[in-house]
Amino acid sequence: MTASHARVLYDLCGTDDRRFSPYCWRVKLALAHKGLAFETAAVPFTGIPGVLGGRFKTVPILDDGGTIVADSLAIADYLEDTYHGRPSLYGGPGGRAAARFVDRWAVTQLHAPLVRIVVRDIHDRLEPADQAYFRQSREARFSKSLEEIEDKSAERVQSVRAALEPLRATLALQPFLGGEGPLMSDYCVFGTLQWARITSPVAILAEGDPVHAWFERCLDLYDGMGRRAVTA
Amino acid sequence: MTASHARVLYDLCGTDDRRFSPYCWRVKLALAHKGLAFETAAVPFTGIPGVLGGRFKTVPILDDGGTIVADSLAIADYLEDTYHGRPSLYGGPGGRAAARFVDRWAVTQLHAPLVRIVVRDIHDRLEPADQAYFRQSREARFSKSLEEIEDKSAERVQSVRAALEPLRATLALQPFLGGEGPLMSDYCVFGTLQWARITSPVAILAEGDPVHAWFERCLDLYDGMGRRAVTA
Repeated sequence: MTASHARVLYDLCGTDDRRFSPYCWRVKLALAHKGLAFETAAVPFTGIPGVLGGRFKTVPILDDGGTIVADSLAIADYLEDTYHGRPSLYGGPGGRAAARFVDRWAVTQLHAPLVRIVVRDIHDRLEPADQAYFRQSREARFSKSLEEIEDKSAERVQSVRAALEPLRATLALQPFLGGEGPLMSDYCVFGTLQWARITSPVAILAEGDPVHAWFERCLDLYDGMGRRAVTA
Repeated sequence: MTASHARVLYDLCGTDDRRFSPYCWRVKLALAHKGLAFETAAVPFTGIPGVLGGRFKTVPILDDGGTIVADSLAIADYLEDTYHGRPSLYGGPGGRAAARFVDRWAVTQLHAPLVRIVVRDIHDRLEPADQAYFRQSREARFSKSLEEIEDKSAERVQSVRAALEPLRATLALQPFLGGEGPLMSDYCVFGTLQWARITSPVAILAEGDPVHAWFERCLDLYDGMGRRAVTA
């Protein structure tokens, strides 16, 4: 296998080529961390069944010169094991195991309150076919209309900021979850906050918050890969 | 340095030689993980200023053949670096960095609601001099009486169980935070729940909860070191 074969990441998109998937962002940073060149193939929600014969229900999906891997942490595992001579995404087996905890923390503690803030903004930044799918699936999940799910109150934003406390306290000790430099665990949390940044004008992080400074550091990584994205 | 020199852990104690410090439990398991024999020196809260000339305000303090280290994660770092030929406490630099996040998660998300449940129980299991110190310091911290701080409501217990969700979700993927076996990150969370187990009769974990099963596995480690402790 060489670094020059075709490497394609199927990457969720909205209107204006907006790439907002938190899980795809994890993988884009993981690929950059490994120094692996890649192209993205934009795919809307309703286009996922048309990718690779509908083998997967969600993105990210990586096609690495014919090797197909889906799911952000499975992709990170694949990259770590396949490209082990390049910078480690985990910093050893303990970091690999811990990335699962950080992933589950981000999903259970951050996504849950964040989605209430950004759900209408996501909808409004999708093409019509995706809007219909998104409304139906999210309204079924919450048993509420999108308009009822949406909550942009100051209390809701504050609840996200409060939920970030374990990260904030860690950043008092070291610049990244990975220690002196970022690891996959940072990309897991970054993806969640980048998802909000790209889809919604609501300022989730307060300036002066150490989490804000860490997020800015993450936006700067790999020639500002995250910062250059189309945002709300 | 040999494995046979004197190794003493200063370990917080209550009545009936009850050893309840969450941070001391972390270190006891870390020492056992490294296969290092040690003795404990029981010290009440009000005895800490009399240890090693009052150099430290809190336990754990490890005296490893004359090398003195305080703070549970500093002790783990010291053990990892000094006894690097023995089983790793971190599983590499990524796991070492991630242990800080797990530590800060346990302290900010679990200790905070748990202390409201167990604070009176801790008090009632201290010698009189420690009771006076404990009441004064905790009442100052909360600006409330111990009796007002205490909250053993079902809602409070439920809030702890809900806060454990990131751990619960991780345990659906692997048996320990450390992966196939326990690492320092497990001992950090174990210490917090062991603190409650040793001081209070309240059942924090529900049977059937994957976190309960994980806690039982931790109690079994190292010949049941944690299980043998005097409990409430």
